[in-house]
Amino acid sequence: MHAPAIEFWFEFASTYSYPAAMRVEEVAKQRGRTVIWKPFLLGPIFKAQGWDNSPFNIYPAKGRYMWRDLDRICAELRVPLVNPSVFPRNGLLAARVACAGEGAAWLPAFVRSVYSANFARDLDISQRDVVRACLEALVPDPDGIVETANGEEVKTRLRSNSERAVSLGIFGAPSFVVGDELFWGNDRLEAALSWPRH
Amino acid sequence: MHAPAIEFWFEFASTYSYPAAMRVEEVAKQRGRTVIWKPFLLGPIFKAQGWDNSPFNIYPAKGRYMWRDLDRICAELRVPLVNPSVFPRNGLLAARVACAGEGAAWLPAFVRSVYSANFARDLDISQRDVVRACLEALVPDPDGIVETANGEEVKTRLRSNSERAVSLGIFGAPSFVVGDELFWGNDRLEAALSWPRH
Repeated sequence: MHAPAIEFWFEFASTYSYPAAMRVEEVAKQRGRTVIWKPFLLGPIFKAQGWDNSPFNIYPAKGRYMWRDLDRICAELRVPLVNPSVFPRNGLLAARVACAGEGAAWLPAFVRSVYSANFARDLDISQRDVVRACLEALVPDPDGIVETANGEEVKTRLRSNSERAVSLGIFGAPSFVVGDELFWGNDRLEAALSWPRH
Repeated sequence: MHAPAIEFWFEFASTYSYPAAMRVEEVAKQRGRTVIWKPFLLGPIFKAQGWDNSPFNIYPAKGRYMWRDLDRICAELRVPLVNPSVFPRNGLLAARVACAGEGAAWLPAFVRSVYSANFARDLDISQRDVVRACLEALVPDPDGIVETANGEEVKTRLRSNSERAVSLGIFGAPSFVVGDELFWGNDRLEAALSWPRH
């Protein structure tokens, strides 16, 4: 039987999505699995739970722990990390660009570049210039892609992605989906890649 | 250098503490590490965060995911799991008995027995009879221990444990502490046992 693809659901503001984004393609490839990149927005999901901010800001002990834990995880992976001077950052435009790049060869590198901008270089990924710079080395027409990303069709597609996330039971990022099975957290990537069990 | 002991901070109502409790001693032993069993209460910590119930009940999507995830984890470990008919159950008396057993040879087996009662046999661990039955096969005088557990000294000790948990930055269970380093979640046991890094 052909091993099923793994859906990688990510939100650019999400801290644990950063190490996941940096390693998902390589780890999946080692197991012969294809990654389907699924940008979505956590904001509306958090809002529906009564949160108007990241739970890591709302619950300080949890936040302090998360930054320390992320530090250990990134050190282990040899992925650079600076604690961003603004958290969470608005990843809306970057998510729209990722949506516009669905299935394109440049998408994985763009996603990694945006995460690096936010978490390794402390750049403001909500800004058009920063997002455009992430595209620049990857595509011949970065401005055209940003324009498409801001069009109605892509906006609608990102909104449907986020609605689909809710219907899959997603409540946080990163999440992985294999068939009907949901896995939450960077630390569940290996379990997701071992699914279905043999 | 002698490898430092690992503190295992657990709450009997906590679902992910169940697989952690069942495996911590064996996994630590394989790495030549000693486990220090630290019962505490999550209730006051959750209350301080504005929760009067388990977050898995307050946030239904998170709760549905947790039961499914726990199911996968327990299946992998071959640890039986039934979804308890009451969740969370009050683990106060059991935590006091665990406090009374600090350093005793019977403590690890008692802790595992209480978790099995709650999560494998769906028994009401808030009840004296159930807690007593968990002690019965392990000690000559279960009634004496339950009496000691209900005394002022042990009550105070459990309260200090819970205060100490807060001062260590603990906000959930299970947690592991090695020196000053905090690890949260059953899935962080291996990382805690690899700490300090060489």
